[in-house]
Amino acid sequence: MREHYREELEDINNCLVEMSNSVGSAMSKATTALLDADVALADLVIAGDEHIDAVRESIEERCFTLLARQQPVATDLRTVTTAMRIVGDLERMGDLAVHVAKLARMRFPESAVPTEVRPIFLEAGHVAQSLVTQVGTVIAKLDVQGAAQLERDDDLMDQLHRQLFTELLSPGWPHGMESAIDITLLGRYYERFADHAVSVARRVVFLVTGERDMVALPN
Amino acid sequence: MREHYREELEDINNCLVEMSNSVGSAMSKATTALLDADVALADLVIAGDEHIDAVRESIEERCFTLLARQQPVATDLRTVTTAMRIVGDLERMGDLAVHVAKLARMRFPESAVPTEVRPIFLEAGHVAQSLVTQVGTVIAKLDVQGAAQLERDDDLMDQLHRQLFTELLSPGWPHGMESAIDITLLGRYYERFADHAVSVARRVVFLVTGERDMVALPN
Repeated sequence: MREHYREELEDINNCLVEMSNSVGSAMSKATTALLDADVALADLVIAGDEHIDAVRESIEERCFTLLARQQPVATDLRTVTTAMRIVGDLERMGDLAVHVAKLARMRFPESAVPTEVRPIFLEAGHVAQSLVTQVGTVIAKLDVQGAAQLERDDDLMDQLHRQLFTELLSPGWPHGMESAIDITLLGRYYERFADHAVSVARRVVFLVTGERDMVALPN
Repeated sequence: MREHYREELEDINNCLVEMSNSVGSAMSKATTALLDADVALADLVIAGDEHIDAVRESIEERCFTLLARQQPVATDLRTVTTAMRIVGDLERMGDLAVHVAKLARMRFPESAVPTEVRPIFLEAGHVAQSLVTQVGTVIAKLDVQGAAQLERDDDLMDQLHRQLFTELLSPGWPHGMESAIDITLLGRYYERFADHAVSVARRVVFLVTGERDMVALPN
């Protein structure tokens, strides 16, 4: 029984890593759909969200069953409750990829992203991908150092977000109000995607160290 | 021991209701700060978020301790894991009130909200307040009917959100790009606040009925 229990805990952790790969792939596709006005790819992301939601439900139920049947304590209990929160963040990251994809779809056959801010969204897509890869490693290896690096990469996303506003507010922005609204919302989606990645990392750090404050981490 | 355990479960539920009152009060103050460019009130909301975060931590820890010591099963276990998720939604609602307050603060002594869209934000504030009051009742009484009503009120918020875009996109919007960005973000904050209220209600419905789908609810 106990051996099965340990395997189940490990398997739940593996599912979280797979789920972070899924949301990373969704955001990556959504970024391409956005930049290339690729409506088929946008549709793939939108349709794929059902699978991500199903994975969340499945992980939640497995955690619940494990709590009910095995009644873990101490670190094992903390591991399960952490997993139950991490799935929430990951699911939301999937939703944000869908928001990006839906905006790409709405403006098709135009691109929602004018030339001036294209490099910013290209880079935001890269940072998002890098964050998600790190999230996978942090979860898989309970990697506290990786979590600290991830916070620094989140700063990159914040910088990109500020650059976006600088572009929008530059005199003579030629693309009108609809485009400005789109870009403001898109910037917010990428920023929140990164925030949730940081949130996952912090939950893992709390699990490992008992510390909520990332400032205490080694650089 | 068992009696204490039951009291603890009830007390955690009471804390959730109090926490929803706190985030309701925060959003209400933030809306006034926004509409009246009241920087002192905005500061109150920003400073008050620390308390809301502390309440979240306290509820999470109490749930954790209850799981560890009492090892509840069945409905009691579901009640605890639901509470652990609801605090996440409520904390985020508090963060969104802070975002509104910070925007009010940033534009002080001007108001971030021009006359044209003032009635929309006034109404959004009322809807937010009404949603939070309903959230409190849904949690306190496990009120599934109230949860269904809450979903309908969320539709009101979505309508307000669409009205906002109609205003922004009307020909000759006179307030420039900065104001348009502010309003787009503000609209998003209120919409997300309402989404989290709905999420809390759905979690309570799932706890009571085992159904995730609100469509199945009586109207």
